[in-house]
Amino acid sequence: MTPTLPFRPARRTGELRPSMIRELMKLVGRPGLVSLGGGMPSAASFPTRAVEEACSRALRTASDTALQYGTTEGLPALRERIAQRLAMRGLLVDPAWVLVTSGSQQGLDLVGKVLLERGARVAVEAPTYLGALQAFAPYEGQATAVRCDDDGPLPEELPHDAQTRALYLIPNYQNPTGRCIPQGRRAKLAAAARGIALPLIEDDPYGDLWFDAEPPPPLASQWPEGTVYLGSFSKVLAPGLRLGFLVAPPSLHPLLVQAKQAADLHSSTFVQHVVLEMMRADMLDEHLHSVRARYRRGRDAMESALRQHLGGQATWSTPAGGMFFWVQVLADVDTARLLPIAAERGVSFVPGSAFHCTPGGASALRLSFVTETPERIEEGIATLADVLRSAGQP
Amino acid sequence: MTPTLPFRPARRTGELRPSMIRELMKLVGRPGLVSLGGGMPSAASFPTRAVEEACSRALRTASDTALQYGTTEGLPALRERIAQRLAMRGLLVDPAWVLVTSGSQQGLDLVGKVLLERGARVAVEAPTYLGALQAFAPYEGQATAVRCDDDGPLPEELPHDAQTRALYLIPNYQNPTGRCIPQGRRAKLAAAARGIALPLIEDDPYGDLWFDAEPPPPLASQWPEGTVYLGSFSKVLAPGLRLGFLVAPPSLHPLLVQAKQAADLHSSTFVQHVVLEMMRADMLDEHLHSVRARYRRGRDAMESALRQHLGGQATWSTPAGGMFFWVQVLADVDTARLLPIAAERGVSFVPGSAFHCTPGGASALRLSFVTETPERIEEGIATLADVLRSAGQP
Repeated sequence: MTPTLPFRPARRTGELRPSMIRELMKLVGRPGLVSLGGGMPSAASFPTRAVEEACSRALRTASDTALQYGTTEGLPALRERIAQRLAMRGLLVDPAWVLVTSGSQQGLDLVGKVLLERGARVAVEAPTYLGALQAFAPYEGQATAVRCDDDGPLPEELPHDAQTRALYLIPNYQNPTGRCIPQGRRAKLAAAARGIALPLIEDDPYGDLWFDAEPPPPLASQWPEGTVYLGSFSKVLAPGLRLGFLVAPPSLHPLLVQAKQAADLHSSTFVQHVVLEMMRADMLDEHLHSVRARYRRGRDAMESALRQHLGGQATWSTPAGGMFFWVQVLADVDTARLLPIAAERGVSFVPGSAFHCTPGGASALRLSFVTETPERIEEGIATLADVLRSAGQP
Repeated sequence: MTPTLPFRPARRTGELRPSMIRELMKLVGRPGLVSLGGGMPSAASFPTRAVEEACSRALRTASDTALQYGTTEGLPALRERIAQRLAMRGLLVDPAWVLVTSGSQQGLDLVGKVLLERGARVAVEAPTYLGALQAFAPYEGQATAVRCDDDGPLPEELPHDAQTRALYLIPNYQNPTGRCIPQGRRAKLAAAARGIALPLIEDDPYGDLWFDAEPPPPLASQWPEGTVYLGSFSKVLAPGLRLGFLVAPPSLHPLLVQAKQAADLHSSTFVQHVVLEMMRADMLDEHLHSVRARYRRGRDAMESALRQHLGGQATWSTPAGGMFFWVQVLADVDTARLLPIAAERGVSFVPGSAFHCTPGGASALRLSFVTETPERIEEGIATLADVLRSAGQP
């Protein structure tokens, strides 16, 4: 007799999905594999010594508070520094509206918690960051795709039904397409959203990772009362710290604070102090400088390898920052089916279908240029081209 | 003309409540105040030097992983250490069923997310930890009180309607009552819950803080398939790290992992490595030894001060561990109304009504003995007695 399980899960658990990327990476996580899949920064890029120094300084100069409970909103000095950095990017915000989060993933969870519910919709770019779809899913809203062109979502296509509670978008070096929305399109999008009172969830983990020129100011600068802006230290310092932040208008900030208090009281005071010390000592900017140079070399290596090995077989645009190339294979292939073969041959990527809220993107794939060295990137792309050629054969 | 706000919050935001404790503490957080309110460990108790050493060791010995993304479940070596510690407490668990969380508050949020929904109920002790009520609230289940006596919830009173999804309880040195459920009652509660298939959420942040003898084994040891056990490093190491864990049966563990992945991907890899290094170097046990001695001195000081100043005015039981006295004032007073007066006179506490899911506890109050020195505890209780005497006058 099978025992009856006592747990009766909530209906929303039917919406929970493990991350396709994380599941795939388990399958293909063989030692020696050229990893063009997950967006994991190379461990060689981590500012290990600077973090060690910052830990010591935080524990010595803030011994009373660095290990203590803190306010849900986050350390006041850190929130001020965050506001100062945003000002340099063209986004003027009062530190009072900054909320420190446990990575920007938590920002997505909190936004989902306070805005979404069964029957509600959230508009997204297609393709988009699948972690956002995961974060929103338990709140039982439905993700719907907005039509996009190479410059981003089309302003005239924004949904303005009462059930669509927000448009989620990644304007800078989007995951997965690498696209950066130009200034003109930003202005039109912000105006269109304001016109139909459609709130914006502006996710910006990559904005500091520009290679040639800074990206245009955030959309939040054009419609601050209607935008929740999400930032992260994962890509500019280290993902293992799990520290991010959001900026919300006064009308929504208190709800997000209460939702966060219920979820984890506050983010690690210790980690907040460590990041604050790194900012005070200009270690963040120094590190960012070297990260940009490193990622740019990776981008250049990948671009040249793609041209050499995949020209004629696929199309792509060259990203001006961030971490990813989005490659459209010309042959009618399902890249999800090719992944195990590629992994067998020694290279990983993420299939395009992983980034769509509805079926789509089957013949696309995402390649990350931040984990491997230029030499290994070249090697990986050569192998991948070979796998694609074999698959394209009748 | 008032502009229309674009945000339309989800219905569940109507359930969000700021923590009464956190709000009160803002009001009464004057410098110099004798703090018998919040359960904040004294900063003097923090193992600052040990944390600094552990940070350096983590960054040197695990430089590839300490700052990198990690698995949602948590560091395998840390999960093994946690399982080993639980075994010493009488709870045998496979490390595979441990999930590392961002404090045990996140454990409560995840449990609420996968078990509760509108129309569902969760049974709780009355009084209980108000952070649990906060964590559950956004999932729109209703908290209902189970009748308790001095030994804990009454087994014959457990609800067995289909809508009650779990019983939430804190068996060791409960917050706020300080009560430790004796072995006999634990056995009866576990048997009764199993008999009616009522899952248990066993919250155990204080179990390591015993003063004279270890508490009985967790209820989870008697009904592992039906219990989610929650643990924390906040009270035994430092709350500012924000690290906890849960142990869930195989039937529920995958849902909790997926819910956590959606919420914050994983807890800080860096903090996990730091705590792991502390456990490896036996720093956790050393520190725990000194924390127990310190808190026991605080408990003794408070007991003697209560006897001296409040005998005849109030009743209490002396806790055998943990952080709190629960004091029942004999006069018909509303302690919430007395708090501002007490704060004015230089002492804080938490009013009893803060710990009830329905009106109740108005004449009780919670006193913490872990923040202040024995001398200041004595001083604070003397002041408090004076305030109560004045309030009790007709």
